[in-house]
Amino acid sequence: MKTHTEFLTFNTKKHRAYVHITPQVEKIVHDSWIKNGMVLVSAMHITAGVYVNDNEDGLIQDIDQWLENLAPFRQEYKHHQTGEDNGDSHLKAILVHHQVILPVTDGELRLRTRQRVFYAEFDGQRSKRVLVYVMGE
Amino acid sequence: MKTHTEFLTFNTKKHRAYVHITPQVEKIVHDSWIKNGMVLVSAMHITAGVYVNDNEDGLIQDIDQWLENLAPFRQEYKHHQTGEDNGDSHLKAILVHHQVILPVTDGELRLRTRQRVFYAEFDGQRSKRVLVYVMGE
Amino acid sequence: MKTHTEFLTFNTKKHRAYVHITPQVEKIVHDSWIKNGMVLVSAMHITAGVYVNDNEDGLIQDIDQWLENLAPFRQEYKHHQTGEDNGDSHLKAILVHHQVILPVTDGELRLRTRQRVFYAEFDGQRSKRVLVYVMGE
Repeated sequence: MKTHTEFLTFNTKKHRAYVHITPQVEKIVHDSWIKNGMVLVSAMHITAGVYVNDNEDGLIQDIDQWLENLAPFRQEYKHHQTGEDNGDSHLKAILVHHQVILPVTDGELRLRTRQRVFYAEFDGQRSKRVLVYVMGE
Repeated sequence: MKTHTEFLTFNTKKHRAYVHITPQVEKIVHDSWIKNGMVLVSAMHITAGVYVNDNEDGLIQDIDQWLENLAPFRQEYKHHQTGEDNGDSHLKAILVHHQVILPVTDGELRLRTRQRVFYAEFDGQRSKRVLVYVMGE
Repeated sequence: MKTHTEFLTFNTKKHRAYVHITPQVEKIVHDSWIKNGMVLVSAMHITAGVYVNDNEDGLIQDIDQWLENLAPFRQEYKHHQTGEDNGDSHLKAILVHHQVILPVTDGELRLRTRQRVFYAEFDGQRSKRVLVYVMGE
């Protein structure tokens, strides 16, 4: 069994952003020379998520609006008594979940065309990382 | 290390449906002859989820009502400008999450009795697939 | 490939509780002697979750309040016709998700300092278990 570890780095211009990362994950799988196994794509931060869904601009706006409705910015979060102002970012990350597992068969990601991998930034404008960890043989 | 890949196919009669699939996943684990490892059960579509919870009819109705409350159908989703009408299906899938990992020990799924695996369809009445991917030895 | 299985047991004093378990998971990884692979940390119950986020008291209170807002206790859940009164506990567990996968490299959990693993109890005051399953070599 082999493992292969890489990181993707993000520094988004906006506070919240949804970055399509399927091509980068595919490249890492190819570079790993692992033919059969799994890839874990996992945010290394507690204010960011990773999810699989459609790369369609309207839907991405809908997702963003929906997350803001369900986990809105609020001054009065208790977390803000520490000096932070990103309570909502933590809640959004929990809702979206911070990781996905993608199967690898014959050296390729086993995803359908519309299943695209996204990095969801909920507290951006600074350097953040995603672990891409391939495991198999 | 071995891997074993199979697919389950669904074509639900209703637009939303919750299908209990533990027996099918158990059969695939047995057929794989893998004794120790993990199974990834992952929807191959972006309007469907996979989750582990109770196989109790009342609870399933509660889950459905709750998901419709938190991620309701709305005409005005931006995604609908593409001609689609399933914006809510994508949001429900993100909320439920589209995959679970189940441990396999001694050739059996390591689940408690009330932990049952469900396929959650949020845009049915057409053919959809779930990947069941066993990895181990 | 090796696997190593252990369980953590909880019996929380409160109905809902958030228990920091990173040290216990780290110890199990060390005891497994697995150097490279993954750990699955997965609740064995359908009214509990496992998540990765900050070990900050204010945030934990915010998470609890937010979950109660989005998946509140309600008398009228259909699940309660079975005699149960924990419909909300199931919904909270689905929202948080019941498992995480953590990478192991060089015999250590690959997490950043603020990424802490939590057991989220939504129907406590009785014995519950979490599976910690290490897989690798």
